[in-house]
Amino acid sequence: MSAIHIALLGYGTVGKGVYQTVQSHQKKLQAIFGKEVKISAILVKNLEKHHSPDDDVILTDDFDKIFSLEKLDIVIDAIVGKEPCFSYLQRAIKRGCHVITANKEMFAHYGSQLKRLANEHGVTLSFEATVAGGIPVIQTLKQLLNVNNIKKVQGILNGTSNFILTKMREENVPFSSALKLAQEKGYAEADPTNDVEGYDAFYKAVILSELAFGESPNWGESIREGIRGITPEQIEIFSSLGFRFKHVASIERTADGVQCAVKPVLVNEQHPFYHVEGVQNAVSIDGDIVGNISLQGPGAGMFPTASAILEDLVHINRKSVSPIFTEQKPDGDEASTVSFWAIGGDVNASILPTPIQVIERIHPNVLLVKAPEETVYAIHLPNVHVYQILGDVVYKGLVVS
Amino acid sequence: MSAIHIALLGYGTVGKGVYQTVQSHQKKLQAIFGKEVKISAILVKNLEKHHSPDDDVILTDDFDKIFSLEKLDIVIDAIVGKEPCFSYLQRAIKRGCHVITANKEMFAHYGSQLKRLANEHGVTLSFEATVAGGIPVIQTLKQLLNVNNIKKVQGILNGTSNFILTKMREENVPFSSALKLAQEKGYAEADPTNDVEGYDAFYKAVILSELAFGESPNWGESIREGIRGITPEQIEIFSSLGFRFKHVASIERTADGVQCAVKPVLVNEQHPFYHVEGVQNAVSIDGDIVGNISLQGPGAGMFPTASAILEDLVHINRKSVSPIFTEQKPDGDEASTVSFWAIGGDVNASILPTPIQVIERIHPNVLLVKAPEETVYAIHLPNVHVYQILGDVVYKGLVVS
Repeated sequence: MSAIHIALLGYGTVGKGVYQTVQSHQKKLQAIFGKEVKISAILVKNLEKHHSPDDDVILTDDFDKIFSLEKLDIVIDAIVGKEPCFSYLQRAIKRGCHVITANKEMFAHYGSQLKRLANEHGVTLSFEATVAGGIPVIQTLKQLLNVNNIKKVQGILNGTSNFILTKMREENVPFSSALKLAQEKGYAEADPTNDVEGYDAFYKAVILSELAFGESPNWGESIREGIRGITPEQIEIFSSLGFRFKHVASIERTADGVQCAVKPVLVNEQHPFYHVEGVQNAVSIDGDIVGNISLQGPGAGMFPTASAILEDLVHINRKSVSPIFTEQKPDGDEASTVSFWAIGGDVNASILPTPIQVIERIHPNVLLVKAPEETVYAIHLPNVHVYQILGDVVYKGLVVS
Repeated sequence: MSAIHIALLGYGTVGKGVYQTVQSHQKKLQAIFGKEVKISAILVKNLEKHHSPDDDVILTDDFDKIFSLEKLDIVIDAIVGKEPCFSYLQRAIKRGCHVITANKEMFAHYGSQLKRLANEHGVTLSFEATVAGGIPVIQTLKQLLNVNNIKKVQGILNGTSNFILTKMREENVPFSSALKLAQEKGYAEADPTNDVEGYDAFYKAVILSELAFGESPNWGESIREGIRGITPEQIEIFSSLGFRFKHVASIERTADGVQCAVKPVLVNEQHPFYHVEGVQNAVSIDGDIVGNISLQGPGAGMFPTASAILEDLVHINRKSVSPIFTEQKPDGDEASTVSFWAIGGDVNASILPTPIQVIERIHPNVLLVKAPEETVYAIHLPNVHVYQILGDVVYKGLVVS
């Protein structure tokens, strides 16, 4: 069987996620491409820190070795920093390779140049993974742009700073402690400048701006303000007033060009960003016809980012894809799902059948229970209502004095 | 200039939105198709209730007249009910027309059949507008399905029932009063059964199921429970416990096939559906690689639905679209934006320059003001912090005793 040959630049978290997903989804990819989809070579910085995941995968620290491979169809870029990445990708495009990148800093600086080069050489240049990890914001924007003029895009685009703000509020700790926690969890790097000072979010805003408005914001005139200055006292005061701090990137088209700002702002409970917590990302898009659309999901991480990269991979072969009604296998034979329910009305816990586990009487008229669906629906008592509770049940949050 | 000839079935809210948007976005559509995009004929039920929007647009109550048009490339279906819609679309497909439908009831029943027919005849069959109005959920699901196996989809898919639940809670009124309000506002029909009993949401869930899982749920085994049974007393009790009622459709792949349920459930503040209020829709998708992605936006309405239909229209011509960096015109020369800000720290209202309008001291250390951006950023005082407030500011919600 012939194969699609891919070189993977970088073998950190994202690179490993891509490699593993290409392996685990090989059958699906083969069905789409009609060929084996093979990662033939991986570029790393330090050969001693890595080993090849498979005997027939070339692991090298020399891009020339990758560039001189006889067969090379697609280059997937999962490295960071502007250079040498930009040079590598230029060479790849000139050779006729399709390119998929997850490198926001490089793409914010050189995206337009790479795009022109890719057009000249008739190859695809994809960048879904540069913004908001697994959230398909690039594809959604392209879809909306088919018809709509985009007026404004706002987003929580950096999971690290959002995690820090969330922890500062939840645990009433200063920036430094929340940062340390983020570093321990692997969300923040030793030097967190890129994330907490808004550079990372700004790069992503630039990429969204070029897509939504066809131009970059003026870098010199853009506002880029970090979250270091926010204190637990400020958070407490604004929480008492119903506000939360969010580190928001926003781009807007005005008569003076595209205005871009990354800065901490306040949102109240009615705002869709209020409940975007921890490492989650969210994007809100205003279109002239459709109105406001917002998207939320994992902004980073091994597999969400790999998912975005593989979506780009599949799009390269879009023309031969037969989409819409995909055939899928069941996830396995799961037993009936146990979940939380509120039983309201005149109900005595002692009469409920044993599979229904009573957690607590949370109100004179409401029992909180955990039970399989069929046992709850089997309750037929006058004036008793049963409602499923979606999502995780926070015990403390439930108890009402 | 040659033209793309479109017939529009139905000239109600959605049909009018499509007609107007095709007119207002003619230049954009022409750039994409390289041809004029022309609505040549409109089918209505009652000729006396309508008049043709333009002299050269045929208005008729006879589908045969449309079917016998010499030139007909695309049929856009904006009518309701299974028949005669299904027959019309079958005939259109057999004639070689591309079809775009917004008719969920018909598509839930006959989507698979129409899809097979469209494949046989080599035409496109698109249905973005059948589910969740302007939210591009069909396209997003297709995008995620390229790589992910979908595990579960949940959604607030009916704006009318969500509006009624919201009003019942906000205004502490019974179902009947909230329904009346929905009818006055044009959100609910004289016979609201379809919406409030969950039929409409169920049809949409069926459409999502066929896309996400390649099969329909078993109609007979699905749960479809409406919201008529919910009382203001129940809403009050659960509100006091931190829960809100939402009318949620959910589909899940299990070993026994696809399970589907439309029913009122409870969600707490942490759940992404908690703040989906009024006529908004929301969809939450669980993929095996990407994790959870949620989307929110307008679920119905003239222009959001027209936006979805026109996105489908553009996709028909996808191959000739040159996407990505769209050139757009500014929205006009807006003046600098005035918005709300919180000024925190040791600040005396009397020293602020006049363009800054002080609304209220909402905390011993915080002033709420309304001001143009540049005047606020010009404040340089020791220990004073300025934060923009995103979204609408609710005065009452702000005042803290």
